[in-house]
Amino acid sequence: MILEGIVTTIGPDGSPHIAAMGPVVDRHVTRIRLRPFQTSQTFRNLKSHGEGVFHVTDDVLLLARSVIGAVDPLPPMVPADRVTGYVLRDACRCYEFRVTSIDDRRERAEIETEVVEARRLRDFFGFNRAKHAVVEAAILASRIHLLPAEEIETEFRRLAVLVEKTGGDQEQRAFALLEQAVRDAREATQP
Amino acid sequence: MILEGIVTTIGPDGSPHIAAMGPVVDRHVTRIRLRPFQTSQTFRNLKSHGEGVFHVTDDVLLLARSVIGAVDPLPPMVPADRVTGYVLRDACRCYEFRVTSIDDRRERAEIETEVVEARRLRDFFGFNRAKHAVVEAAILASRIHLLPAEEIETEFRRLAVLVEKTGGDQEQRAFALLEQAVRDAREATQP
Repeated sequence: MILEGIVTTIGPDGSPHIAAMGPVVDRHVTRIRLRPFQTSQTFRNLKSHGEGVFHVTDDVLLLARSVIGAVDPLPPMVPADRVTGYVLRDACRCYEFRVTSIDDRRERAEIETEVVEARRLRDFFGFNRAKHAVVEAAILASRIHLLPAEEIETEFRRLAVLVEKTGGDQEQRAFALLEQAVRDAREATQP
Repeated sequence: MILEGIVTTIGPDGSPHIAAMGPVVDRHVTRIRLRPFQTSQTFRNLKSHGEGVFHVTDDVLLLARSVIGAVDPLPPMVPADRVTGYVLRDACRCYEFRVTSIDDRRERAEIETEVVEARRLRDFFGFNRAKHAVVEAAILASRIHLLPAEEIETEFRRLAVLVEKTGGDQEQRAFALLEQAVRDAREATQP
């Protein structure tokens, strides 16, 4: 199964990097296979320092922010327990991991990891259509340059209804951020 | 915010009734406003016995089963702690509640409740596009008689891709159940 969440890694200078990620996991998240693009900072960081932390979260605002560019300012983080890395303090659960193998034969690398520590920080809200609409919008926003602008706009209009009807302030702000990112990208590519 | 979950109530004979429900809640689920149709068993049960249990769950198979008809056989349940009612043993969290007021001026009643006991049973999986696709499919299936057949079919085809790509066995079985329910309903209404 694919579990959409957020991974933190550390760069060569020890600075934390935050990225949205949808690894392949089993139902109880005992193993995590990451699939970052080889062009990504997460891939480079894990190649040079083979440790990181995967987070399950329902914080769609942070998810949206991590999709549209470097997260700034950084959210509250604390040092991880068993690896050199950072735990997002407001996540629902964190999984500290060590890389066991990297397969970089394809554009999207396959990184097998071993979970060395798992902790619950707080409860996940549950099924909320607005939160999931933001997840879908974030995935679309991350594919701006691969999809026709019209397709993205049509989907955003459909998703906006769900955010409005079933979400709260966090979901609405996250969705607005993604809408703006899509608009900015379109204007940047127009002649 | 709307939180999609499952509510259990008890009938006049003390038998448990299970229904999918999307109450209005605050972010920490300290209050729950249920909105059942007045034609529903849940409404009748809460009118005669003003107690029940709301559950947050990621079990989309149970969610799908509870949308397409009476759940049979019943899932594992244990008696609630502080109300006369039943807790779904395999849910993620349960909220035992008492009804404080019922507004039945509209087709969909507004039932205010007071949460008298909240418990975590296990972790919610997290964001998974397949699980959410099943939630959307379940909502469509519950509106079979309100929506054009073609619209439902188009949506199901779109959702099927997500279930296939990001889900596991539970999500695929849940989606297949809903597809079958939609097919059955269509055949039943054809001349």
